[in-house]
Amino acid sequence: MRILLSNDDGYFAPGLAALADALHDLGDTTVVAPERDRSGASNSLTLDRPLALRQAANGFHFVNGTPTDCVHLAVTGMFDHLPDMVVSGINHGANMGDDTIYSGTVAAATEGFLLGVPAIAFSLASKSATDFTAAAKVAHDLVARFIRDPFREPVLLNVNIPDCSTGDIRGVRLTRLGKRHKAEPVIRGTTPRGETVYWIGPAGQAADAGEGTDFQAVKDGYVSVTPLRVDLTHNGQINAVAEWLEV
Amino acid sequence: MRILLSNDDGYFAPGLAALADALHDLGDTTVVAPERDRSGASNSLTLDRPLALRQAANGFHFVNGTPTDCVHLAVTGMFDHLPDMVVSGINHGANMGDDTIYSGTVAAATEGFLLGVPAIAFSLASKSATDFTAAAKVAHDLVARFIRDPFREPVLLNVNIPDCSTGDIRGVRLTRLGKRHKAEPVIRGTTPRGETVYWIGPAGQAADAGEGTDFQAVKDGYVSVTPLRVDLTHNGQINAVAEWLEV
Amino acid sequence: MRILLSNDDGYFAPGLAALADALHDLGDTTVVAPERDRSGASNSLTLDRPLALRQAANGFHFVNGTPTDCVHLAVTGMFDHLPDMVVSGINHGANMGDDTIYSGTVAAATEGFLLGVPAIAFSLASKSATDFTAAAKVAHDLVARFIRDPFREPVLLNVNIPDCSTGDIRGVRLTRLGKRHKAEPVIRGTTPRGETVYWIGPAGQAADAGEGTDFQAVKDGYVSVTPLRVDLTHNGQINAVAEWLEV
Amino acid sequence: MRILLSNDDGYFAPGLAALADALHDLGDTTVVAPERDRSGASNSLTLDRPLALRQAANGFHFVNGTPTDCVHLAVTGMFDHLPDMVVSGINHGANMGDDTIYSGTVAAATEGFLLGVPAIAFSLASKSATDFTAAAKVAHDLVARFIRDPFREPVLLNVNIPDCSTGDIRGVRLTRLGKRHKAEPVIRGTTPRGETVYWIGPAGQAADAGEGTDFQAVKDGYVSVTPLRVDLTHNGQINAVAEWLEV
Repeated sequence: MRILLSNDDGYFAPGLAALADALHDLGDTTVVAPERDRSGASNSLTLDRPLALRQAANGFHFVNGTPTDCVHLAVTGMFDHLPDMVVSGINHGANMGDDTIYSGTVAAATEGFLLGVPAIAFSLASKSATDFTAAAKVAHDLVARFIRDPFREPVLLNVNIPDCSTGDIRGVRLTRLGKRHKAEPVIRGTTPRGETVYWIGPAGQAADAGEGTDFQAVKDGYVSVTPLRVDLTHNGQINAVAEWLEV
Repeated sequence: MRILLSNDDGYFAPGLAALADALHDLGDTTVVAPERDRSGASNSLTLDRPLALRQAANGFHFVNGTPTDCVHLAVTGMFDHLPDMVVSGINHGANMGDDTIYSGTVAAATEGFLLGVPAIAFSLASKSATDFTAAAKVAHDLVARFIRDPFREPVLLNVNIPDCSTGDIRGVRLTRLGKRHKAEPVIRGTTPRGETVYWIGPAGQAADAGEGTDFQAVKDGYVSVTPLRVDLTHNGQINAVAEWLEV
Repeated sequence: MRILLSNDDGYFAPGLAALADALHDLGDTTVVAPERDRSGASNSLTLDRPLALRQAANGFHFVNGTPTDCVHLAVTGMFDHLPDMVVSGINHGANMGDDTIYSGTVAAATEGFLLGVPAIAFSLASKSATDFTAAAKVAHDLVARFIRDPFREPVLLNVNIPDCSTGDIRGVRLTRLGKRHKAEPVIRGTTPRGETVYWIGPAGQAADAGEGTDFQAVKDGYVSVTPLRVDLTHNGQINAVAEWLEV
Repeated sequence: MRILLSNDDGYFAPGLAALADALHDLGDTTVVAPERDRSGASNSLTLDRPLALRQAANGFHFVNGTPTDCVHLAVTGMFDHLPDMVVSGINHGANMGDDTIYSGTVAAATEGFLLGVPAIAFSLASKSATDFTAAAKVAHDLVARFIRDPFREPVLLNVNIPDCSTGDIRGVRLTRLGKRHKAEPVIRGTTPRGETVYWIGPAGQAADAGEGTDFQAVKDGYVSVTPLRVDLTHNGQINAVAEWLEV
């Protein structure tokens, strides 16, 4: 069992160390992660410069690129065979609802999936969390289940874990992505040299956090598991758009 | 009619100038685009530094950020009202099939859509194209149709235009995204200082370019229009994953 | 007379346009400047990725690199012969005293000098200046003098121009670099996501702005011209350090 | 004795670890280094975005900025008192002759010096070196000498160490910076997407490597120590330029 690990918080992130520890006894793990924090990187791919691959003292590899670059380089350049799984995380903070499309953690898993490898992204659903113990156990158990009982079709899972102790996690729920209200406005500031600058504002509050969503599951103390697809075609609008186009 | 224009090739790109010219008589256009080429930026959002907004001699605004940053900053920071449309492009090169998730051009449109604005991404389906005339006419006509006959629900359209003269375009087709074969391996190189580096390789050949795909439409000389959705939940796998999880 | 122009404010900067206009009738000018604002870039050189060279609609070339990269690439890659001069600027803001070592404008000139080409850096000594007319005339006149009466040895000149009308400039002074008080402390801030960050603070006040310095000349309404050297050996300390080392 | 350590190869670099080990028993050491390899950064300072300061598992701090940013932030933002010394390195590769102005390792020391702190930059003069033992001993001994017998005036030393065993180092020489021949031309390449790009070429061969230079000392198996100054005024040309300017 060869497992490729990555994340978007950088190769030095505690959540990645916790994940590597948790999966250590489940197979042959290789870590290839960004050399710096690339939160918000989405599926971005570096096309205008080449990438360097280095190895840290602890054996982790790091790349001067995005999470997608890391998985792409590892799968198409480092290994003789496809890995059996790509596991990404454990992200420091939730990746739920609409935010999923901005996530580099989810993107690392997505790149594995697009390259033909089953993939799971794990996120600890709190920016203020400091203890990855419970999340690491969830990651271990889900990956162990996957090894014992492989899924019958290609799969890309997005897992969010509430920030509580192992004993307080109430179980696992199969969810759909919720929705957020529109983002907060940008925040205007001034540099010490007098230039106006704008920070991207915080994400909006959950708008659809109802029954069945990832927001609701985590709020209720459950691990949220959402299967994702990468084909962006909006099948439900095909007919309406065809009619509108008069084709 | 207020139209926000962006792209991922940078504010200096000829395709953006062609788009701005084409839409000029259809409404009040504002251009906010990246200060440098951000092809492959996907939906990445800049969270670790603030953004600067500047204006070029021709009136175009540019931002030291990603396509998503540009639209986000423009919509939540520059305007008093939501724009009526976000139009992105004209990209230099196709954005079809799986590649759509890496595209900054599509991402700029997606950000508009997520902020509640109907959005269209236009791409000229050839990296070697030099003439945007036909593509600009297609953009003009589709946006004019949208203004005349607004779509009844929120919509995000991905439009790819074959690289030929206006007279040789055979019409418009409603399509689904095709699929590519897995990507080519990374390409190993050496820097002048002796370090090994890796370029992300070219995209794979089309694997599903069959009837109904964007690949097929463009190959046949048609404009391809694909409605996209941004909810990544894989509804078709919900039951199977629930069963697998035993929940 | 072939003149290479660059700057550190970016190829779109008004000061560069003013310089190009001013020197247009003095020779064959080529502009190669950074694609984005690289103020503070010093002599940094891009070694971990290759550079792209593009051309804007107005004929200016731009490079995705530093001011030093621009001059290095232009001199060693674009031209068949060495240019006769490298002229950098007109910078928006002063480059005087200790700040000179941080300046990308001065660095662009320095790179020309290191490659064997006489070089001059021009700066308009006010961050709030909006009119480059007087500075452009100064640049024109000094370069014209250089063409008429070439300097007999390799030379690298740092020129700072007071922000006033041509009529109010009182003349030219030959100066040494002044000194600043130590820099102000970094300025602590918080991102919208709650992370602590630090802005580099403003430069300190002038400490040595006495007779003969660039600070004094500009304050008195004179153009300051300082010859620079790039050999950093501290000849005045050689003996004391030798003694200290007991060698 | 409080010693601030930095480098330009990144906080994860073996040369920095060797330096920290070597100086550990000489005082209270704090490491603040760039989060990624910033070789060639020169004195560049980050002015358009704020900096983040993080701490790695081994206690080293890292900053998403340049070597100059690291020292500036540490000295003006982290400490209550000025450190007693700034020590930079051990760089992987020489910093001799004209190359010194491009070096981030030397720049980190220079920033310390400009902020009023005595500073030394150490470089192991071989890109292929793998063993920092001898260089670390040299660093230890020079810093120990500095503590025992502080220099009577502000000092900035550039130290290059030959790549050999401790026993094969023949001693220490006080040197001036040598000179290189002009740089090699840029190296043209093509990206996998067909775009032309240019790598900065290797440095030129030594042109002045004669008696008294750093090049000669290291070639002869000696540690080279060069005192540097940061006032770039070319005093030797003041009169000639004044005459030329007719002032």
